[in-house]
Amino acid sequence: MHADAPLDRRLFVAAAAAAAPAALAGSGPPATTAAPADPGPRPKVIFLDVNETLLNLDPLVASVGEALGGRPELVPLWFSSLLHHSLVATVGDRYEDFGVIGAATLRMLAANHGIDLSEKQAARALAPIRSLPPHPDVEPALKQLTEAGYQLVTLTNSSAAGVKAQMENSGLQRYLSARLSVETVGLFKPHAHVYRWAARQVGESVEDCLLVAAHGWDVAGAAWAGMRTCFLSRPGKQLYPLAPPPTLQAADLLEAARTLVALPR
Amino acid sequence: MHADAPLDRRLFVAAAAAAAPAALAGSGPPATTAAPADPGPRPKVIFLDVNETLLNLDPLVASVGEALGGRPELVPLWFSSLLHHSLVATVGDRYEDFGVIGAATLRMLAANHGIDLSEKQAARALAPIRSLPPHPDVEPALKQLTEAGYQLVTLTNSSAAGVKAQMENSGLQRYLSARLSVETVGLFKPHAHVYRWAARQVGESVEDCLLVAAHGWDVAGAAWAGMRTCFLSRPGKQLYPLAPPPTLQAADLLEAARTLVALPR
Repeated sequence: MHADAPLDRRLFVAAAAAAAPAALAGSGPPATTAAPADPGPRPKVIFLDVNETLLNLDPLVASVGEALGGRPELVPLWFSSLLHHSLVATVGDRYEDFGVIGAATLRMLAANHGIDLSEKQAARALAPIRSLPPHPDVEPALKQLTEAGYQLVTLTNSSAAGVKAQMENSGLQRYLSARLSVETVGLFKPHAHVYRWAARQVGESVEDCLLVAAHGWDVAGAAWAGMRTCFLSRPGKQLYPLAPPPTLQAADLLEAARTLVALPR
Repeated sequence: MHADAPLDRRLFVAAAAAAAPAALAGSGPPATTAAPADPGPRPKVIFLDVNETLLNLDPLVASVGEALGGRPELVPLWFSSLLHHSLVATVGDRYEDFGVIGAATLRMLAANHGIDLSEKQAARALAPIRSLPPHPDVEPALKQLTEAGYQLVTLTNSSAAGVKAQMENSGLQRYLSARLSVETVGLFKPHAHVYRWAARQVGESVEDCLLVAAHGWDVAGAAWAGMRTCFLSRPGKQLYPLAPPPTLQAADLLEAARTLVALPR
């Protein structure tokens, strides 16, 4: 089934989460199905991941690629190293701002390619992260979700100041009832504590919350913590094969909104 | 200073760990110095990381590169994703075998490049990890360290069965007094608990142990947990700029052994 699934696949609702982990154990990416099943009751709060999920990283890819000697093909390796080191900080109990870790990992990668990048140069290469444009599907989707009465809250690895700038610059702030950053707890996603803490912040049980993200590791962590999840299979994004399937899956946020708006209040 | 430091730099002993973190905070890769300082008293146990530190990953790079459609340049991205997801499992409290996570992340990366890789094919691509050859400096260095009375113990993210095969196949088993794998505690390095647990396993205080690794994140985690550290600056390896400098640094294990063997008993 996996072999036949297009990468940019259409929305599907995964089989009941209870049955799925056993069916999927060690068997690779979750199989997709064209027949939507029951997504469960309407979630009370929708948490939104920010980078790549809402915002388009292209300007950052360009500036980081330039800092790496004109090699944008190295940017995925930098981003992966940034994510790895955010968790290195987490398991070492040495929280640092996501941007500081981003600059440190960029300097390591540059050094590996014979490029000496100063702290200032690395910070400059990362500056576009604060003014990324939203993906084209995002604003109309947030509008629909807001009109349908959903409470929308960011839950991001970006710092509190970082996500504030991101939401103001992208014009998305008007749709949010709150912005949550992992900075407040000093642990990066997908630490289980982060999702449970986020649910407490909005006064709901974790099961009544839904996380929307374009990263397999993020929806994995949220599901493991008891949250419902919606995976956006944006280009180049894959579900993590060792996690339970998401509650919802969609090609973009507009497609996900269609299902969410239709859920009875 | 960083600009002048050769990537394949000669052994140096970092400045006193107490003074260094402040001096280095946010200032990029630790500066090197040609003047060795006091490495402190002789460690009672030397913990050895395995993959890349003792063993040469080239055969794995070849097989994984082949599984990725003949693109060995993607292998660093796979290895980074494997490390990231090992910590995703750790912070989600969902431990899985390093090889299982390796296969899952390899399948995700393959799918991102339009390659459908079965679970069996992914496992086959990873099989060479069990019979990697040691780097040329490793066996003579372990021999010298053993003759100098050091107790040598592996401390690896590989599974218990995995490191057993690795040490037997590489001929290095004879130099080890024990093999520790993170599998026993169900948390991957660099979780602080792993290093403290390892010290307890050998009956020594964490400060009397030294970890040798070619990964900046590994020596960072060990240092944060209170262990002394030796970083091997193998090609393509960088210290993590946001961690304290290692106790020792060497181009390879033979160079590190020279310093360690000279320490008074």
